[in-house]
Amino acid sequence: MTRNILIVAGDGIGPEVMGEVERVIGWFNDNRKFDAKIENELVGGCCYDAHGVAVTDETVEKAKRADAVMLGAVGGPKWDNVPYEGRPEAGLLRLRKDLELFANLRPALCFAALADASSLKREIVEGLDIMIVRELTGGVYFGEPKEITDLGNGERRGVDTQVYTTSEIRRIAEVAFDLAKKRDNRVMSVEKRNVMKSGVLWYEEVKTLHGEKFSDVKLEHMLADNCAMQLVRNPKQFDVIVTDNLFGDVLSDIASMLTGSLGMLPSASLGAKDASGKACAMYEPVHGSAPDIAGTGAANPIASILSFAMALRYTFELGADADLLEKAVDKVLADGLRTGDIMQPGMKKVGTKEMGDAILAAL
Amino acid sequence: MTRNILIVAGDGIGPEVMGEVERVIGWFNDNRKFDAKIENELVGGCCYDAHGVAVTDETVEKAKRADAVMLGAVGGPKWDNVPYEGRPEAGLLRLRKDLELFANLRPALCFAALADASSLKREIVEGLDIMIVRELTGGVYFGEPKEITDLGNGERRGVDTQVYTTSEIRRIAEVAFDLAKKRDNRVMSVEKRNVMKSGVLWYEEVKTLHGEKFSDVKLEHMLADNCAMQLVRNPKQFDVIVTDNLFGDVLSDIASMLTGSLGMLPSASLGAKDASGKACAMYEPVHGSAPDIAGTGAANPIASILSFAMALRYTFELGADADLLEKAVDKVLADGLRTGDIMQPGMKKVGTKEMGDAILAAL
Ligand SMILES: CC(C)[C@H](C(=O)O)[C@@H](O)C(=O)O
Ligand SMILES: CC(C)[C@H](C(=O)O)[C@@H](O)C(=O)O
Repeated sequence: MTRNILIVAGDGIGPEVMGEVERVIGWFNDNRKFDAKIENELVGGCCYDAHGVAVTDETVEKAKRADAVMLGAVGGPKWDNVPYEGRPEAGLLRLRKDLELFANLRPALCFAALADASSLKREIVEGLDIMIVRELTGGVYFGEPKEITDLGNGERRGVDTQVYTTSEIRRIAEVAFDLAKKRDNRVMSVEKRNVMKSGVLWYEEVKTLHGEKFSDVKLEHMLADNCAMQLVRNPKQFDVIVTDNLFGDVLSDIASMLTGSLGMLPSASLGAKDASGKACAMYEPVHGSAPDIAGTGAANPIASILSFAMALRYTFELGADADLLEKAVDKVLADGLRTGDIMQPGMKKVGTKEMGDAILAAL
Repeated sequence: MTRNILIVAGDGIGPEVMGEVERVIGWFNDNRKFDAKIENELVGGCCYDAHGVAVTDETVEKAKRADAVMLGAVGGPKWDNVPYEGRPEAGLLRLRKDLELFANLRPALCFAALADASSLKREIVEGLDIMIVRELTGGVYFGEPKEITDLGNGERRGVDTQVYTTSEIRRIAEVAFDLAKKRDNRVMSVEKRNVMKSGVLWYEEVKTLHGEKFSDVKLEHMLADNCAMQLVRNPKQFDVIVTDNLFGDVLSDIASMLTGSLGMLPSASLGAKDASGKACAMYEPVHGSAPDIAGTGAANPIASILSFAMALRYTFELGADADLLEKAVDKVLADGLRTGDIMQPGMKKVGTKEMGDAILAAL
């Protein structure tokens, strides 16, 4: 059974880090009978340059058919002035929406070897292991109306709409509860119900679902502003955090920055299963396209490689292979290899390719 | 000329910390010819208990007529199940809206004596001095529709609307530029224009205003998720941050938590000047109602006292008096007095009243 993997490397350091992922996939083909067929397509600014849109219909169709999509990163100053509809992010957002990737899993792990790289005190972040479950296809990202209108009197009006329905909330909460069961069995549901009606609905629906199906999981609720503070004050209080698209965007970025190693963090965006049991999935590093170092061979490929480990675990259900790959990454770090973003005194500084080489060797 | 100050102490520790503010105002009356007349009214849960609403029309009218409103804090678990319209926060939000307090100034200052209290490394936060300028009467807090509707099929739909107009954006940006001129002359405008149309409008209008009137101030733009990260990574890169109501809520809470001393941070909410030149203003601590320690006499009154210093500076234009009060607070900290929230080894632990006594003595 051939597995189809679509790589959309995107912009900036995307192609460099995805190059290493291809090599890792190759290793699993050669040594673990993984049998993956890789295709490459454009997304983001590079696609806009080639086709005038941030992702083509053909690529979206290919992504839907693929077993897993591996995305690098999109965007960069080069496309700062393209029309809103053509901006690099539009490609990413369309993939998320059209593939119905409603569940974004963002682990924030503090790697023991890197605990000192955090701007937070070591004791605050050492051993940190949070899973942020972010709703990814709803909320203010996609709600309508979403427009700028001219009011005629020299004034314009910009509108975005935050919308959630019962079923959208239930399905993401279900993912969070299921994950919690395999972890520390605790879910923190985060909204701003003291100000937002969508937050009131979120709170009520999560509570109801909990009572119906997950009362064995510990559920608590927190306001989003407080959660942002608590992530800074004492992040280890959290196990699984479930929240909406916009709060998830901000809170997961805070959480990843706590670890001091953004270049290390993977993510998975998972879709609903269709009638045949197939679910779309996209895996990508949490970091961006880092245009400042693009093309220099300095980028850290680990976040992308660990994203592929998530693909092994969640899409291909090859947990043992995922463990293997994660252990290889641990070993390389323990051996003292570091890309520039995670460089520490006394360690060996390497580039993208050398890091890839080392991980392949460790495998 | 008598100055009218309305104190709405609110819930939890509100009355305790406001008690100390009253004493400080008394000192300025007695020693600096401040000539303030104080009235007290209810807001929040205590008002709901007394009147079935979180703020009464009479209090709103009094607040409009007052030269300055001093607010303690609102909310607590006691009111978790009151109807949405009657929840404690509704009183605060109505005051903000009806008094047109569009400009929320939230300084995030790291007090030298407390730099070690932060969860961040000392070198990251020592000397931190950020001013967050948050739009306070627009955005998703007040936009319509804002509702939960029953879709009939067992599903409900929650909607909130994020709206900004040209003039709303310009007037808050103007406040930020003016403040920057008195500081390090740098403004960071924060939105999420890669996803939100209101963010696109925000970006464009701030840029236009800058070109028209403030080109001598350094202006940069940052996406909100990145700003949250940068606040954790390297907060000292910022001088003035200007952003919308919801991002401002989250980002200012992050910024205040960086300082390690939430109990120390004041805020000002300023209105537009009317035809007679009068502007409404409300001053409040950044911390909440802390129901867990309410009534124990342990609360830190400094944030509220420093909020009164902001009133002296911004409403009464008594900069020298504001300096006097701020210096008194510095002295008390230097003398080693600490409430429980900022307690450190070797310091003297005091309660709300003793802290107030010490500040009065230092004055
Ligand atoms: C690139 C951008 C549209 C995206 C988002 O806001 O979701 C990014 O910040 C992310 O978190 O994946
Ligand atoms: C109490 C609540 C409504 C309020 C807000 O969200 O604005 C608070 O968090 C604040 O920041 O002043």
